[in-house]
Amino acid sequence: MPANVDQYVEENRERFLAELIELLRIPSISTLPEHQADVQQAADHVAARLAEAGLDNVEVIPTERHPLVYGEWLGVPGKPTVLCYGHYDVQPPDPLEEWETPPFEPALRNGNLYARGAADDKGQMYTHIKAVEALRAVTGTLPVNIKFLIEGEEEVGGASIARYVADNGEKLRADVALVSDTAMYAEGMPSLCTGLRGLIYAEVSASGPARDLHSGLYGGAAPNAVYGLIELLAKAKDDNGFIRIPDLYEDVEPPAPEEKASWQELPFDESEFLEKEVGAPALI
Amino acid sequence: MPANVDQYVEENRERFLAELIELLRIPSISTLPEHQADVQQAADHVAARLAEAGLDNVEVIPTERHPLVYGEWLGVPGKPTVLCYGHYDVQPPDPLEEWETPPFEPALRNGNLYARGAADDKGQMYTHIKAVEALRAVTGTLPVNIKFLIEGEEEVGGASIARYVADNGEKLRADVALVSDTAMYAEGMPSLCTGLRGLIYAEVSASGPARDLHSGLYGGAAPNAVYGLIELLAKAKDDNGFIRIPDLYEDVEPPAPEEKASWQELPFDESEFLEKEVGAPALI
Repeated sequence: MPANVDQYVEENRERFLAELIELLRIPSISTLPEHQADVQQAADHVAARLAEAGLDNVEVIPTERHPLVYGEWLGVPGKPTVLCYGHYDVQPPDPLEEWETPPFEPALRNGNLYARGAADDKGQMYTHIKAVEALRAVTGTLPVNIKFLIEGEEEVGGASIARYVADNGEKLRADVALVSDTAMYAEGMPSLCTGLRGLIYAEVSASGPARDLHSGLYGGAAPNAVYGLIELLAKAKDDNGFIRIPDLYEDVEPPAPEEKASWQELPFDESEFLEKEVGAPALI
Repeated sequence: MPANVDQYVEENRERFLAELIELLRIPSISTLPEHQADVQQAADHVAARLAEAGLDNVEVIPTERHPLVYGEWLGVPGKPTVLCYGHYDVQPPDPLEEWETPPFEPALRNGNLYARGAADDKGQMYTHIKAVEALRAVTGTLPVNIKFLIEGEEEVGGASIARYVADNGEKLRADVALVSDTAMYAEGMPSLCTGLRGLIYAEVSASGPARDLHSGLYGGAAPNAVYGLIELLAKAKDDNGFIRIPDLYEDVEPPAPEEKASWQELPFDESEFLEKEVGAPALI
């Protein structure tokens, strides 16, 4: 038995990589109906790895669209429970000519593994599974209880997992949720993301006159649907960029002093952010 | 010699109509280069009719694009001079399937003459020429001096006439300009239009970030070019619909009491205007 988890990881590095490459080879493109079987295959792959990592009650859960994968280990009652979220579906790989190597033929270059989904989110999700495997293999236990819920619709709106979570509150109950679908803050700087932005959207249609109206005859009197939309959208934010939905900010907690302090330690350079990352004349 | 102008018009009605039909048959579509020769032919037609009406110094004036047609009669020195404007070019006739009869085969239906350009502006422009012809033929003179300037680029922006007017102020000097390119207020109600709306336009481009930026990571910090345009365009008018160009309204004369009074006599019905003409839920 390896002396510690790091040693276990070193000894199994090649196998871990081979398994990840196998998963990355599956074109589990959730937006394209012709890849339905590939998406299913990726779900089965994830379930098999969860079982091998020593999780219990592993299941591939059918939904109206793409399956969810669940697994749990609840061997330390009284300890906190961590719910790990990730997704095994990927975006379409277009435009293909932008790829240096084919998107579903994983390639190692300069110590990085390039493939569609390697960084969103098969790669990160896989590290969670392998962390459980390594901890169980070396220590025989885990410091916390753990549940995995991995979806295959992240890139298409996530309707099935939203329904499943709403319907299975007790089964999924946890003290903390750990989302693998986030980024490292900087190269070589593994990061814990403690806040995610929400999304509210609506499709708005504006209709004005029933027929073409000459601006010289009707402009100023007849409504213009495009200008109506412009006025409406311009009112979505105030002059300081604050969203004008009543009471929206009442539920927003300001960052804690510790959070603010931790941000100070990040390697953030505003001019580099502006010029290299954003590439705009100014920030908002 | 006819006893009066009305009698002259009655006696020559068939010829007037035949001449107008001949002009309407010419597909003088100024936007389409393949109709260049047709546009020239329409200009020549108009010039010939001006000469026949007894105007002097008739000329077809070449420009960078489509010719102008000029003619004058200055036989009553000391009397006011009227400058008559019109255009002999037409819009493309698409969509063709919407025409009951072909656009360049003028057809009489219910006492109306249908053809591309019949109402914009060959028909109206022709009435001015025929008015001069009838007055000259019956009275031997005209009550005012008159100048005609007819263009062939009204439907493509009118760049040549704008240059010509700027360069020929003395030649075109007049006490009043009479524009034939306006409409009757209502069926059976010949109208004098005493005001025309101006047009100021600009092409605005907005550019934001140099590359695609995920709203979840950059939204709120990086500028969005579309939203920038929305904010800009929304500021073009205030909440009451007034244009927010500084001093714009300082040069705007309010309508005279006589004008306001004359409007009261127009057969205007706001609900009919809204429901039948505009077809929108409300006016601005």
